[in-house]
Amino acid sequence: MALFKDLEAAEAGTTLPLDETLKAIPFNDQGLIPAVAQDADSGEVLMLAWVNREAIERSLQDGYATYFSRSRGALWRKGETSGNTQALVSMHLDCDGDALLMKVLQQGPACHTERPHCFYLRVEAQGITVTSNPT
Amino acid sequence: MALFKDLEAAEAGTTLPLDETLKAIPFNDQGLIPAVAQDADSGEVLMLAWVNREAIERSLQDGYATYFSRSRGALWRKGETSGNTQALVSMHLDCDGDALLMKVLQQGPACHTERPHCFYLRVEAQGITVTSNPT
Repeated sequence: MALFKDLEAAEAGTTLPLDETLKAIPFNDQGLIPAVAQDADSGEVLMLAWVNREAIERSLQDGYATYFSRSRGALWRKGETSGNTQALVSMHLDCDGDALLMKVLQQGPACHTERPHCFYLRVEAQGITVTSNPT
Repeated sequence: MALFKDLEAAEAGTTLPLDETLKAIPFNDQGLIPAVAQDADSGEVLMLAWVNREAIERSLQDGYATYFSRSRGALWRKGETSGNTQALVSMHLDCDGDALLMKVLQQGPACHTERPHCFYLRVEAQGITVTSNPT
């Protein structure tokens, strides 16, 4: 955390080595932080999943988004079975280093329900509404 | 979770009462799920924070984004001290009910570092780069 605290006042253009940065990420007790996938073209927020250090490194190496599946307890390259891959355009950490944003080019629907994105439940004071059909 | 599983095949337009939905959210052992704030105009992902049931209800009631501060252990209406409030435009749950998206109109900078958004650390294979200055 000290690293991210130090960076708060750093000027644009300041750089740090990747290894030093990854070591400073305050992963939770499962070794994870939340990761948001955003469509790099439309700006639509596609999904939220989780990454460990290895998933971050794998995504950077492969150029495709890899997450950590909490249900399976294993790395999960998005689309490895469905074909609905996410080509990585850019990756960003937040001010505290405890959340990741991946801007991606989504192949096919992002959601396992075959909807374009996962946030299809609109929440209002009177209740929730399903906002899209599986494609 | 059964509720969200049942909704996977539901057609667009299907509605459910709010209370029933909030009871079904699989909050973690701290009673929280991650919440993404997105600028409703620009589409920019502004920040990721956490919400409990009460924060969700408060946001819907007030029309301004309220989170749960893990460091302070209390509800935190974004901007309550800084003035950098987030007027709620729409709220969305994801397919599993374990992540929230709030589309907001951000007053001032979203980040506590006075940057427009929190994801100002670009991550690449060779290292990270600070991409913006405090405004």
